[in-house]
Order: sequence, then C-alpha cells, then structure tokens
Amino acid sequence: MSGADRLPKADATKYCEDGPAIILVRTQLGENIGMVCRAMLNCGLTDLRLVNPRPGWSREKATTAAVGADILLDTMRIFDTTEEAIADLTHVYATTARGRDMSKPVLTPRKAASRMRGQINGGDKCGVLFGRESSGLTNEDVVLADTTIMVPLNPAYMSLNLAQAVLLTGYEWFQSGDDTPEEQENFRGETRHANKHELVGMFEHLESSLDDTGFLWPPEKRQSMVNNIRNVFQRAKMTEQEVKTWRGIISSFMKFRRQAKDRADD
Amino acid sequence: MSGADRLPKADATKYCEDGPAIILVRTQLGENIGMVCRAMLNCGLTDLRLVNPRPGWSREKATTAAVGADILLDTMRIFDTTEEAIADLTHVYATTARGRDMSKPVLTPRKAASRMRGQINGGDKCGVLFGRESSGLTNEDVVLADTTIMVPLNPAYMSLNLAQAVLLTGYEWFQSGDDTPEEQENFRGETRHANKHELVGMFEHLESSLDDTGFLWPPEKRQSMVNNIRNVFQRAKMTEQEVKTWRGIISSFMKFRRQAKDRADD
Repeated sequence: MSGADRLPKADATKYCEDGPAIILVRTQLGENIGMVCRAMLNCGLTDLRLVNPRPGWSREKATTAAVGADILLDTMRIFDTTEEAIADLTHVYATTARGRDMSKPVLTPRKAASRMRGQINGGDKCGVLFGRESSGLTNEDVVLADTTIMVPLNPAYMSLNLAQAVLLTGYEWFQSGDDTPEEQENFRGETRHANKHELVGMFEHLESSLDDTGFLWPPEKRQSMVNNIRNVFQRAKMTEQEVKTWRGIISSFMKFRRQAKDRADD
Repeated sequence: MSGADRLPKADATKYCEDGPAIILVRTQLGENIGMVCRAMLNCGLTDLRLVNPRPGWSREKATTAAVGADILLDTMRIFDTTEEAIADLTHVYATTARGRDMSKPVLTPRKAASRMRGQINGGDKCGVLFGRESSGLTNEDVVLADTTIMVPLNPAYMSLNLAQAVLLTGYEWFQSGDDTPEEQENFRGETRHANKHELVGMFEHLESSLDDTGFLWPPEKRQSMVNNIRNVFQRAKMTEQEVKTWRGIISSFMKFRRQAKDRADD
C-alpha cells in the first residue's frame, strides 16, 4: 500500500462502498466537522450529514482540518432536524458516553459494525448519530435510534472528542469488512524464508568453524551447545538472503583462522 | 458508567494497569502530544515517552489539548534517542503507514494488542513507536522494533494524525482486556423484560378489544391478523412497564366504545 495515501483526491473514495451515514447533531466547530471528514474517509465512509450545526461554523477551518478529505464537505447534506436527517434510513444507532434511562440495547462499536454490515448487505440503510461536542445527544435524539453504541474505555476517563468517536465507529466498520490477515510476513524485496536445507547448511558451516576455533569444547557438552546456538537462529525465522549474509559473516571470522593456519603450515 | 468521566483528575488512572509504553519519536507539536495524552488515558495507558521532540514544543498547548489527561505530561519521560527510550523494554512494535523493505512481521492493531497482552501478562515490557507527524518513523527506528503494526484503512486515504494512530492502537489494547458484553440490555430504571404471561395477557386484551370494535374480521382471516399483530410486539421486546402502558392505551381507546355501548344499552 506504499504511496497509496498520496493518490490524487478524486481517487480517495474509489474503494468506498455503501456504508452507514455519519450524522452530526448540533456540532459547534468547523474544525471538528473537518476532522470527522478525515476520520470518515480513513474508514471508507462518505455519507456525512449535519443536523442544525452552530450558525457561522467555519467552512475554511473545516477544510483545513480535513487534510484532503474535504471532498466530503462537498457532498455533505445539512438538515434542520434529526428526523429529516434520518428519514431515508431504516436502522439508526446513537452513540452515547453514558447510560440513558431508556430500554434500548447497548452495543459495542464492534458488534454494531457487524450488525450494520449485515443490514446494509441486506439492502437496508443505516446511520449513526453523534451529539454535540460538549453535551452529546439529547434524549429526544436517542429515542429516534433503534440501538445505542457505547465504546468500552477507561471508565474513569471516557471523554472522546467528536472525530475520535467517529473514528472508532468507522474503524470497526472498516475492520468488519476487511480481510487483511491479522499477521503477515513482509517480504517486499525479492526474498523468501530460508528453507531447511539452507538453514542446516549454515548451521553446519557455523559448527564446523566453531569446532575449528575450539569453541565447541569439551566434546560431552558439544551437542547441548549446538542445540542452544541453533535455537537462536530457528527463532529468528531467517530469509534465504540473511542465511547467505551469515555464511559470509562466518567466513569473514574464519579468514584470520585460515591465515593463522597457513602461517603455521609455512 | 454515568458521570465517571467527571471524576476528579487524580482518579483518572485508577483503573489503569500495566500497559505498553507509547513512544513518540521526533514529535513536532505540543497539541499532538496533548491529544496523545487524551487518547492514552481513554484507553487506560499511562507510560508516555518522547524521543527528541522538536525543541520549543509548547507544553501549554499540550496541556490544553490533553483536556484533563495532562497528568500524563507530569509523568512523561523524554529521551535523546530511541535506543534509550526502549532500553528497559523486551518487545517493541513500530507503527507504519506503508510497507518497508524489511523482513519483519506485520500485525493488525488487534493482533498486536492481544500479543502484547500475552507478553505483559508473562512479565515482559512492551512499547509502541510512533513516528513524526509528517514522515513517520525512519528505517533506523523500525529496525529497533521486533514487529510492525499497520492499521487496515481505506487504501486510498490512509493518512491518520498522530493521536488517532495512538487511539486506534490503545483502543485495541483496551478491548483486548475488556469484558463488556458485545450487546446488553439497558435497564437503568426499575424495570425488566415482560414475561410471557404479561405479554400474552396484553395480546388477549388487545385482540378481545379488536374483536369488539370489529377490526378482526372476517373470521377466516382472524388468526393471520392476530399473528401479524403479535409479531410486531414480539420483536419490540417490551418491558413489564411498557406492557402496563400499552394495556392503558388499549383501555383508553376502548373507553369510547364502552361509552357507545352504554348509550346503546340505555
């Protein structure tokens, strides 16, 4: 993916599929709207809706804070009421930092993401409500939602800024549809893991050299010393190229041993 | 957890356990250091280390951006080199936005979090390196790490700010040790789900009332109409209190029917 983040703007949405709408209710600051754009585009989300933002919020500051994700400001829609903003949606989620006196299921962002993906795959339209920076959503907004989302965080310090709340929700959305292996080898050069023939060849090269220098002594301890040395290299999971390098290193060490031998032979 | 975010500062770390160190290498801006403090404390992380930050970074701006998490600025340590900053650690992870020409395993943040938790539970000390805002980590820094972390995100727009990268790593760390059920009912009042006796009682009240008004007609369609009506309420997963409210609603509708009957009887 090297360099992918330097693609021209117009291409930034080319991998974005249908995702949930992000609905910001009574947002105060242009900077926050811009940072939300950035977090959304990071996560492949493009449907931004504002409900009754503070009059006079700075579009210029939003553009700066969006750091190239301001294409979402161009397609963003603004509504007077939450009811209008969610009119076309079939499933609405409300993010809350604290419990509410409402009998409504509370999901983690991870569970909410997998549920939304199922709903959207089934042809439904979803959206997530985010409240005002200072005070969150009103109860009247939460009532409009089917489900609430609460992020499990340090219970003694739960305060997330708006863009970070959007980022965590969007991150889980992206992960729920992403098939990146959880662990992968990173062979960007022209190499591969060493096979066991190459590795054992290096072991034997090293051990015969250490026999020669007298390191593997006394004989009754030789096998356990060899095992310990081999285990270090086993754990290192060397590449074919690294094995070649190490054989060069061993030869380099042995050069002086050979010279000393040659002198002794003269 | 209502109100927990309003706890006094000194208590904000009371749930924090041993976690990975967060190591910011050559950070430029005080604001970013402050936002990292906030993201760390959200995720229960407290061990912040700076390597060679830009001279003159604003501690004041960091404190403002930390929004109450500036207690981490007081315990933060500053080092001249990455080597010094990681000297006491046994496992070091490097976050990178792009692949490197290095044969080093690449983990998702989720996998890295579960691996670090295993390592820390086993008595090891872990840390995660984050590079400069503009350019990330140098290859020399990445070489010092055992493992790299790459966040799966929109491949056409991967640019995360520093605090957001820390947040996603910390979020996965917190989730890996958190036992919040992925879905829970939220009964904050004194109520509970209605049992089936209460629910069927409401169904029968509604259906006898609709028999009376003539809605459930003709008789050969009655059963399928009843099934459809019951299914709506089944899906609504009503509480005992809501069942009582709905019986009141039915009675309220029927009041006029009773009055009409009474008049007819007169």
